[in-house]
Amino acid sequence: MNLVDAIGEPALVRTVWDDGRTARFHHVWLRDNCACTECRHPTIPERTLDSITVPLDIVASSVAVTGGTLAVGWPDGHRSSFGSAWLAEHAYEPGFRPVVDEPRTLWRAADLAAAPESDYAQVMGSDEGLLGWLLQLREFGVSFVRNTPTVPGTVIGLAERIAFIRNSNFGLLWDVQSKPQADSLAYTAVPLTPHTDLVSRTVQPGVQFLHCLVFEATGGDSTLVDGFACADELRRSDPAAFDVLTTTPIPYRYHSDDCDIAARGPMIRLDPEGELDEIRYSNALMAPLAVDPDRMTELYRSVRAFTSLLRSDEFTFRTRLDPGDVMTFDNHRVLHGRESFDPQSGPRHLQGTYIDRDDLLSRLRLLGALAPRSTTKPA
Amino acid sequence: MNLVDAIGEPALVRTVWDDGRTARFHHVWLRDNCACTECRHPTIPERTLDSITVPLDIVASSVAVTGGTLAVGWPDGHRSSFGSAWLAEHAYEPGFRPVVDEPRTLWRAADLAAAPESDYAQVMGSDEGLLGWLLQLREFGVSFVRNTPTVPGTVIGLAERIAFIRNSNFGLLWDVQSKPQADSLAYTAVPLTPHTDLVSRTVQPGVQFLHCLVFEATGGDSTLVDGFACADELRRSDPAAFDVLTTTPIPYRYHSDDCDIAARGPMIRLDPEGELDEIRYSNALMAPLAVDPDRMTELYRSVRAFTSLLRSDEFTFRTRLDPGDVMTFDNHRVLHGRESFDPQSGPRHLQGTYIDRDDLLSRLRLLGALAPRSTTKPA
Repeated sequence: MNLVDAIGEPALVRTVWDDGRTARFHHVWLRDNCACTECRHPTIPERTLDSITVPLDIVASSVAVTGGTLAVGWPDGHRSSFGSAWLAEHAYEPGFRPVVDEPRTLWRAADLAAAPESDYAQVMGSDEGLLGWLLQLREFGVSFVRNTPTVPGTVIGLAERIAFIRNSNFGLLWDVQSKPQADSLAYTAVPLTPHTDLVSRTVQPGVQFLHCLVFEATGGDSTLVDGFACADELRRSDPAAFDVLTTTPIPYRYHSDDCDIAARGPMIRLDPEGELDEIRYSNALMAPLAVDPDRMTELYRSVRAFTSLLRSDEFTFRTRLDPGDVMTFDNHRVLHGRESFDPQSGPRHLQGTYIDRDDLLSRLRLLGALAPRSTTKPA
Repeated sequence: MNLVDAIGEPALVRTVWDDGRTARFHHVWLRDNCACTECRHPTIPERTLDSITVPLDIVASSVAVTGGTLAVGWPDGHRSSFGSAWLAEHAYEPGFRPVVDEPRTLWRAADLAAAPESDYAQVMGSDEGLLGWLLQLREFGVSFVRNTPTVPGTVIGLAERIAFIRNSNFGLLWDVQSKPQADSLAYTAVPLTPHTDLVSRTVQPGVQFLHCLVFEATGGDSTLVDGFACADELRRSDPAAFDVLTTTPIPYRYHSDDCDIAARGPMIRLDPEGELDEIRYSNALMAPLAVDPDRMTELYRSVRAFTSLLRSDEFTFRTRLDPGDVMTFDNHRVLHGRESFDPQSGPRHLQGTYIDRDDLLSRLRLLGALAPRSTTKPA
């Protein structure tokens, strides 16, 4: 799509495109987004123009389109230019930019019969392998990385293919095995109902990695549930509960000798466009609910309705990890759990780590797989 | 305040307190919050009761108050008990719990004539010293830690008095000095207008530490602005702009060769109660704004109104750091900047690091300075 014309009007510049559509850009917006080397640093990705110096009522003294580039002259002699691709990408005319659906496939247990999987050597060895893995993570919220060396600490290197590790009170790398002095139910042999991790923090980690090193114990199958699929089902089957869970902050708390971490957030969070954005759910860490007494029964009913979906066989994918498997999943979307195991029957040892969702998206952008693809420079 | 009586009703238990007030607790809520060793792990801070096993319409078979403790019997023979302190703290009866105002003093430049300060040895040496520092941080959003050894890396130990370091694309510890190949304007000698750090991440770091090691250059004074004081002023002086800035997601982006991090959030974020919660502001990293064209002029006007307050002399505290000073501040509230300096006139070398707000609050809770103070166990 190419820019073919631009008409200066009192408050804005009306651009005309080769498909006949128009998009408006305000003068002050154009001046503010000038990307010349005076207004943006030539090598540092930051605006050096101090926006407060731009009069709010600035009006371009000239606008012209040449070869798909919009050239704008300003009253003080400054000049800006904006390419078609950059303008098209940043246009704020309603409907101008195509709505890009999240490349997301909601799933139920049966849909994961052929679970998304990647090969460790390929992920580590090439950008294509890395991207293939991340696209699975993005579409399904889960990917099993197979054939990973069963060397302790290896999962850190895998996570760092994306970005730096996100630390927590559990450390950069944590050992999931039944142990004395456990400070988490994860470090016992009891069953874990499906949950997201670090619910009591303002932002839950975005990607979780669980690397199976040794697994000789009886029991201990892993479970995964697509929280977005359950939320989507709840929206259809019980819209009242869906409304409650998207609007009521639920408190969570983890209080040990070393930390006392508390946060609250809706169990189902929507983004500003109303799309599913994040699940925050842990039966084990939910703090005492606090809403007006007249709303408490409905809140409990709503939590129960969602919980029932999360626990249903229809949505629960079960698998037994093998040594060398790394279960990687979107901790804002996919809940995980495990069945109990018998620690007397043999060892079960996983190692885990986290990264933030911001950094997954950053890596996807750098690999060209996620808009915005162009630079922030409108050159 | 002590519990003196409890009356079982069909949907809830009505508790009566020694000041004559009542507070309602639903049966299902009480059963769900049972803290016996069957329902909560005896040493791990997690609920082991699977809440889905509690009937939503459960009704206590007996309720009794003895010595300030509420004893509840359940139809299956299970028994729960709840102490007065725990019940009072978790009561959800409107108005029952006193509203605890945030211990927050909004300030203008003149109010900081005697800037909040702490002594490094005291902060490192005792819980009292640590707490004194953190209370300043909490009340004013800033505290200068004086007499810190000018040994590189020392700031990490100071931050770890609170919690583990929050990593970012800039690393665990970053050197603020004018350097070639800079990937941030902070690492040049240009002026920095007031901003919060890491605006392009979903959650900005909660506490920032800037440790002055060497400062012989001319210029380079530090600036601080209480963003909450400015937002509070904006709410009064320009409520329309305040409304726009609390409801419009503003996009930010940091795009280098190594990362492409983008997030959006309101410039002034309110919590669910409508209280000031977070400022997200950086002129340098703001991405092209995208709202309906009919709203763009008002958005620019609103950003400008807030920016003007943030830049005003009335709100701008200026100081020159000395070697041994660590400027610590709430990066969700207080904006920082610096004036330009002349790198030819001598060196200026700071080191910085971050921790998350969750962990500041955790440390304050562990030190007994922040409700909720009791454990999550209603014993």
